[in-house]
Amino acid sequence: MGSVLSGNVERLRGAAEREGLKTLVLAGEANLVYALGVKGLYAALVLSRECGDYLVTALLDYWKASLKTRGFEVKAFYRGGESGIRAEVPRGDLIEAESLPAAVARLVEGCGGPVGVDSQWLPSGVAKQFSEVLGDRFRDASRLVASVRRVKSSEEIELIESAIRIAEKAFSRALEDLGEGVSELALAGRLTGYMMEAGAWGPSFPVIVAFYSNTALPHHTPEHAQRLSNPGPVLVDWGAVYEGYMSDTTRSAWRGPGGSRYKRLVEDVVEALENAIDTAGPGVNAADVDRAARSTLERKGLAKYFIHGTGHGVGVEIHEEPYLRPASKDVLEPGMVVTIEPGVYMPGLYGVRVEEMVLITKKGRKVLTSLPRTLEL
Amino acid sequence: MGSVLSGNVERLRGAAEREGLKTLVLAGEANLVYALGVKGLYAALVLSRECGDYLVTALLDYWKASLKTRGFEVKAFYRGGESGIRAEVPRGDLIEAESLPAAVARLVEGCGGPVGVDSQWLPSGVAKQFSEVLGDRFRDASRLVASVRRVKSSEEIELIESAIRIAEKAFSRALEDLGEGVSELALAGRLTGYMMEAGAWGPSFPVIVAFYSNTALPHHTPEHAQRLSNPGPVLVDWGAVYEGYMSDTTRSAWRGPGGSRYKRLVEDVVEALENAIDTAGPGVNAADVDRAARSTLERKGLAKYFIHGTGHGVGVEIHEEPYLRPASKDVLEPGMVVTIEPGVYMPGLYGVRVEEMVLITKKGRKVLTSLPRTLEL
Repeated sequence: MGSVLSGNVERLRGAAEREGLKTLVLAGEANLVYALGVKGLYAALVLSRECGDYLVTALLDYWKASLKTRGFEVKAFYRGGESGIRAEVPRGDLIEAESLPAAVARLVEGCGGPVGVDSQWLPSGVAKQFSEVLGDRFRDASRLVASVRRVKSSEEIELIESAIRIAEKAFSRALEDLGEGVSELALAGRLTGYMMEAGAWGPSFPVIVAFYSNTALPHHTPEHAQRLSNPGPVLVDWGAVYEGYMSDTTRSAWRGPGGSRYKRLVEDVVEALENAIDTAGPGVNAADVDRAARSTLERKGLAKYFIHGTGHGVGVEIHEEPYLRPASKDVLEPGMVVTIEPGVYMPGLYGVRVEEMVLITKKGRKVLTSLPRTLEL
Repeated sequence: MGSVLSGNVERLRGAAEREGLKTLVLAGEANLVYALGVKGLYAALVLSRECGDYLVTALLDYWKASLKTRGFEVKAFYRGGESGIRAEVPRGDLIEAESLPAAVARLVEGCGGPVGVDSQWLPSGVAKQFSEVLGDRFRDASRLVASVRRVKSSEEIELIESAIRIAEKAFSRALEDLGEGVSELALAGRLTGYMMEAGAWGPSFPVIVAFYSNTALPHHTPEHAQRLSNPGPVLVDWGAVYEGYMSDTTRSAWRGPGGSRYKRLVEDVVEALENAIDTAGPGVNAADVDRAARSTLERKGLAKYFIHGTGHGVGVEIHEEPYLRPASKDVLEPGMVVTIEPGVYMPGLYGVRVEEMVLITKKGRKVLTSLPRTLEL
C-alpha cells in the first residue's frame, strides 16, 4: 500500500502547486482512503507547502490514525466542554476547536495563500463550515481532486484487479446458493459475506440481486419476500473493495428451462457491450463509447429501454470521473478505469444488464473482468 | 409499512405548516426512506400545499419509484441530450431539466411561498444547486426535519425492535463462527450475511469486529490479517436495517482462559452503562445521561479513557438527534430511541464498549436490546 498512497499524495500535491494552492485540505471518506488507505476516520488531511502536513482527527480517532496510517503527523481536536477527555494523547497533539473545519483553520492560520478544499461531496453543513472558517482563503478544489483521481497509477490498477478477482471468486461461490426458495436478500448477503471472507473491506455498494420482473429496475433493492422458484431471469450487480479500491460487475441470465427470448436479449446487450468496448481507447470521447452501445441497441429497436449512461469511472469511489453518457464532455486517457454496462429494461417484464470493467491503455483498452459474459444457471 | 410512512409524512407536513413553509422538499437517502420506505432512489419528494405532492426521480428510477412506493405521483427528469431515452414513461410524467434540483424548481414554480429543503446532509454540490435554482424562496429545513424525525411513533418503534431482534439472532449465530483462525473481516462478513438472510436490508453501518489491541480503537476497521488465536478481547459493534429502521449494539468479551482484569473492566463499563440508563427519562438533559456514565468511570479512574459521547439517537439513520454528549443541549422526550454506549480505550492494550438501545417513555425508559451485557466466549 505504501507506494500507492505516496504516489496518490504526490500527484495531489503537484496538481495543487500547479494551480497556485499553498494548502490542500482533503476530507470525506473517499479522499481519505485515497491518501491514507484507511476508512472510517473522521478527519482532514492538510498538505501545506509552508507548514508541512498534518492529519487532523476527532479525538476518538486519534489512535486509529496514529497506528493505522503512515507519514503524517496526527493532531486531534476536542471541544472546549470535553477538556477532561484526553485518551493519553500527548498535549502537543491536541487542538481545542468547535469543529474539524475550525481545527484545520487554526492549523493553517499562519501558512499563507489560498486553501483548497475538495468540498463537492462533503455534507453541505461541513462544506459550509470550511468556507466560513477559511473566509476569503477558501477555494473549492473539487475539480482538481477529481481530475487527479480519475487517472490511475499501475499500483492502483493492481488493487482494482485484486478487487475484481475477489468479487469474481465470491460470485462463483454464491452461484452455488442460487437454489429453489433463496431470497434476493439472502443471496445478496451471502455474496457480501463471501467477498469479505476473501479479504474485501466490504461490498463496493449494496449488492443488487433481482429476480423476475425486478430485473427491470436498474437500481433494484433486494427483497426478503422475493424468492426463487419458477424459471426466470436473475440479475446480479456487485463489487468488492480491496484496500480501498473497488470493482463493479453485472451479469444477467435466465435460470431454468426456456427463456429463449430473454437469452437473445442478453446476446443483444452483450453485442452493445462489445461494440462499446471496441470503441474505447485513449483520446476517444466518452460520449462516443456511449453512442456505440446505444446505436447497437437502436438497430435492434431496444434503445428506448436503455435508460441510463453506458458507464463511469471506478476507483476509491464507485462512481467517479469520467462519465460515459450521451452529454459527457470527458475524453478517455490511459490509466482510466471505467465500467461499460449497457442495459435494457422492459417495465413489468424483465431487464438485462451486462457490465465489464475496462482499463484505457496507451494503445487501446484492456478488459479487466474475466467471467464469461453469458452464464448458464 | 403504510401507516408508518403516512404518519411520518403527515408529521413533516404539520411541522412545515407551523413554520410557514408552503412547500417542503425531502432529498437524500435517509429522508426518502423515512417518507417512502424505499432506499436507493435518486429522487426528491415535494410536499406542496398549493400544488400537491410529487416524487421526482432520475429517469432510471422512474419505474422503481412507481412500483415500490405508494401515495405519490411520480415524475422523471431527463437531460436535454437524452431525449431519445424514454423507458415507456408516459410523456406527461417527464420533465426536461439539467438536474434534480432544477426539475424540482420547475415543478414548484407556480406554487407560491418559501420552499424548505433539508440540505444539511446533502452533498454540498447538490445543496448548492437547490439554493441556486430556488433563489430567494430557498429555506434550509434541516432543523425542522431533524426535530420531527427524532421522536418515533409506535409503528417506528416496532420496526426498530424488529431490527434489534434480527441483529441479536444473527449475532448469536455468528458467535458459532468465532473459532481459531477466523479473521476480523470474515466474522464481520458472516454477521452481515446472517442479518440479511434474516430479512435485514443490510447492516446499519459496516460491522466492527476487533480482536486484541484493535479493541482499543473505537472505530476500528476489521482486518483480513487479524486472526483469532490466543486468548484475548473481542469487541463487536453491529446493527441491522429492517424496513429502513436501524439497530446499534456493542458487546465486548474476553475469549479463552484468563482475562480477569479485562473482565473487571467490562463490569466497570456495564456499571457506567446501567447508571446512564437509570438516569435517562423524559425531560432529562441528554448531557446528564452522559455525565452519569462519565462520573461512574471517573470514580474508577477510567474517565480519561472514555473518549467519545455516551450515545445518540437512532432511526432511519445510525446517528441522529438527540446526542448524549457533555456539551449537548438536547432534552430527552418520550418516543426518542437512543444508544447508551460508554467505553474505555487503553491505547496499545485493549478497549471495552457495551452498548444498548433505550426508548424514552412517558414514565421513564425501556431497554430495547435483550442480549446479556456480559458474555462468556
